[in-house]
Amino acid sequence: MQFNSIISRIRERHPLIECLTNYVTINDVANIILACGASPVMGMEAEELPEFIGLSSGVVINLGTISRDLLPAFEIAFKSSAEQNKPVVFDPVGVGATELRTSSATKFLELYPVSVIRGNASEISCLAGAGGKTQGVDAASGDAVTPANRSSRLAVVQSLARRYNCVVAMSGALDIISDGTRNYLCRNGVPDMSRVTGTGCQLTGLTAACVAAMPEEPLLATVAATAIMGIAGELAADKCRQRKDGTSSLRNYLIDAVSMMDDAQLENFSQIESID
Amino acid sequence: MQFNSIISRIRERHPLIECLTNYVTINDVANIILACGASPVMGMEAEELPEFIGLSSGVVINLGTISRDLLPAFEIAFKSSAEQNKPVVFDPVGVGATELRTSSATKFLELYPVSVIRGNASEISCLAGAGGKTQGVDAASGDAVTPANRSSRLAVVQSLARRYNCVVAMSGALDIISDGTRNYLCRNGVPDMSRVTGTGCQLTGLTAACVAAMPEEPLLATVAATAIMGIAGELAADKCRQRKDGTSSLRNYLIDAVSMMDDAQLENFSQIESID
Amino acid sequence: MQFNSIISRIRERHPLIECLTNYVTINDVANIILACGASPVMGMEAEELPEFIGLSSGVVINLGTISRDLLPAFEIAFKSSAEQNKPVVFDPVGVGATELRTSSATKFLELYPVSVIRGNASEISCLAGAGGKTQGVDAASGDAVTPANRSSRLAVVQSLARRYNCVVAMSGALDIISDGTRNYLCRNGVPDMSRVTGTGCQLTGLTAACVAAMPEEPLLATVAATAIMGIAGELAADKCRQRKDGTSSLRNYLIDAVSMMDDAQLENFSQIESID
Repeated sequence: MQFNSIISRIRERHPLIECLTNYVTINDVANIILACGASPVMGMEAEELPEFIGLSSGVVINLGTISRDLLPAFEIAFKSSAEQNKPVVFDPVGVGATELRTSSATKFLELYPVSVIRGNASEISCLAGAGGKTQGVDAASGDAVTPANRSSRLAVVQSLARRYNCVVAMSGALDIISDGTRNYLCRNGVPDMSRVTGTGCQLTGLTAACVAAMPEEPLLATVAATAIMGIAGELAADKCRQRKDGTSSLRNYLIDAVSMMDDAQLENFSQIESID
Repeated sequence: MQFNSIISRIRERHPLIECLTNYVTINDVANIILACGASPVMGMEAEELPEFIGLSSGVVINLGTISRDLLPAFEIAFKSSAEQNKPVVFDPVGVGATELRTSSATKFLELYPVSVIRGNASEISCLAGAGGKTQGVDAASGDAVTPANRSSRLAVVQSLARRYNCVVAMSGALDIISDGTRNYLCRNGVPDMSRVTGTGCQLTGLTAACVAAMPEEPLLATVAATAIMGIAGELAADKCRQRKDGTSSLRNYLIDAVSMMDDAQLENFSQIESID
Repeated sequence: MQFNSIISRIRERHPLIECLTNYVTINDVANIILACGASPVMGMEAEELPEFIGLSSGVVINLGTISRDLLPAFEIAFKSSAEQNKPVVFDPVGVGATELRTSSATKFLELYPVSVIRGNASEISCLAGAGGKTQGVDAASGDAVTPANRSSRLAVVQSLARRYNCVVAMSGALDIISDGTRNYLCRNGVPDMSRVTGTGCQLTGLTAACVAAMPEEPLLATVAATAIMGIAGELAADKCRQRKDGTSSLRNYLIDAVSMMDDAQLENFSQIESID
């Protein structure tokens, strides 16, 4: 697949990414955005968001530690991004697990445009109205994409993409990415990535960096981000095996791999196919 | 000591652990819970806690970054855990250092049941009404368990365990764990663990995972968690020495060691003795 | 340069440092303070701050995730530090990027004494009224200290130091530190430190530990902290090159290097010169 030198582009343009994200993985999200060549700002105060979004080329909105008190900040982040025409990558963490998450995410998507929705299989299924049994913030095992259920999962992704006129990425062992018309499957990644907290949040951050560097092609940018994350996971797992290290080192080596990745590595190692 | 294959049990049952914890070490707590085989959810919003606790098999309540605004969330976490009969592992971080911590912790313990209280020597002594001079969030050096003061420290642990009808773990170079009747001493661990922030919070998270996997034996589960953490620290310190790495690597290798630990390692390396 | 055995002093005195800091890098700040030999407490609740500050020998006030709700805590941290005569190291993160930051920082500096202000070139320039185009939380490239603009940058640093009668450290590839009269340039450090989030926040924490250990010489303590951080970055970058690791490992090796640094290393590797 042709990724249009997206990693070089991020490093040339150095886009600023405003992240309204959660307290659990905020440091990792900032570090992976730096690692890929973009620049993070993690503003969470409602009254500052219009200014930070004004300086930014992409916006992450992640529900991870949503609270009643933060709802106005989320509302302003969506509204200000729409007004300033900045691409939003939305991560509906834990949708389906609590009423607050499900109702907030649905309301935001009905009111405001987003460029990309990125979540696990349970979260995406829940938003698409196709069930989805979120276990805390992890996908229920029965919701994951498998070779057997691939076409039904694709239908879920497509329907959500069409409803909100955006790109949707359903992440997991197999990733499905669609804009409602064109669809891709990504096979990169390793199972141990699910033993590190925040690999999903980090992928959301990477996606925003890719979309900011290539705003004319959000679908391709999202596919690229997914492949970068998966390849980084594979390289990190190799290093862990060689060094006999465990999951905390995997987390570090994954960000390391993103910081050292180049366009050629992305082209050579990506396992992407067009599907329908 | 017989640990009843507790690590295998965690990995089979994959219990969800709701953690109302602090902003400083929240990422490490989530990662060590994943490393041992359980699954974390770090909900902090009062109105979501009953739902997250309902999905969970164990609950961490950690006072690390308590605030006036978070008090209702703490109250609901205790109350909802009691109503839904979920085991609570309570970490009274910094009790003794400020009035808010001391009064809140005491009030919660008077009103709500907990399965385990885990803290450093100063925190446990303070809760037991036996003095305890908390220095910020670290134990005062004079409060630590030593061979010389072991029996007086044990008396403090036992009295707290009896008062609240729970397991109490006093952590430090030597750890004392008691349910008021049966008492254990754990010798695992290395001094450099105190040069990494959050090893206590991580142990609290591990304890909740162990209790969730073996709810019929909270005392044994707490002893197992203490031994797992200490052994992981020893393995991590070995790796640091070999590689000439420092305290940040120690933090990583410690979580690595938990992610790679198995039942045999726990049985073989644990240094536990029954005391009275 | 003679650093008066400052690292040994920190490890002997083990000063407690209260940090009112941001959610993004709070764990790294706590860990680097532990690594150098001091002890962190990360209290953020307004009503606890006077107690924590009372126990502490130094105070970090970092605007990184300032919010309307946290303003009373910031106000109390400054006020209580002044009343209890504790040295404050102030990090005006993102000043110049939003109205809230610029107005808050200016107001605090007009009302309360600080020992040290430490920021990047854009932040320091903004506070000094010399422009400064903060990009999110990073310095604009045009604001950095270079051999060519060194004397104009020094004038900015000096004017801010004189206005608030404190030490000012402008951090970057070249660091300038001044108390308004005596001025130093530090050449330690590596460019990749800017690819890790929070190296500035960590330096602020280190500075507070150094000032707490040597309160009679805040200028020298700030120069020492700057050199320690830069040397640690150089050692970390060497290790990354040898091991073919990336930016997340750089973060870890940097804290590792601080944890293993001694007075001789600081004396031997520091690249400090007196300038005017």
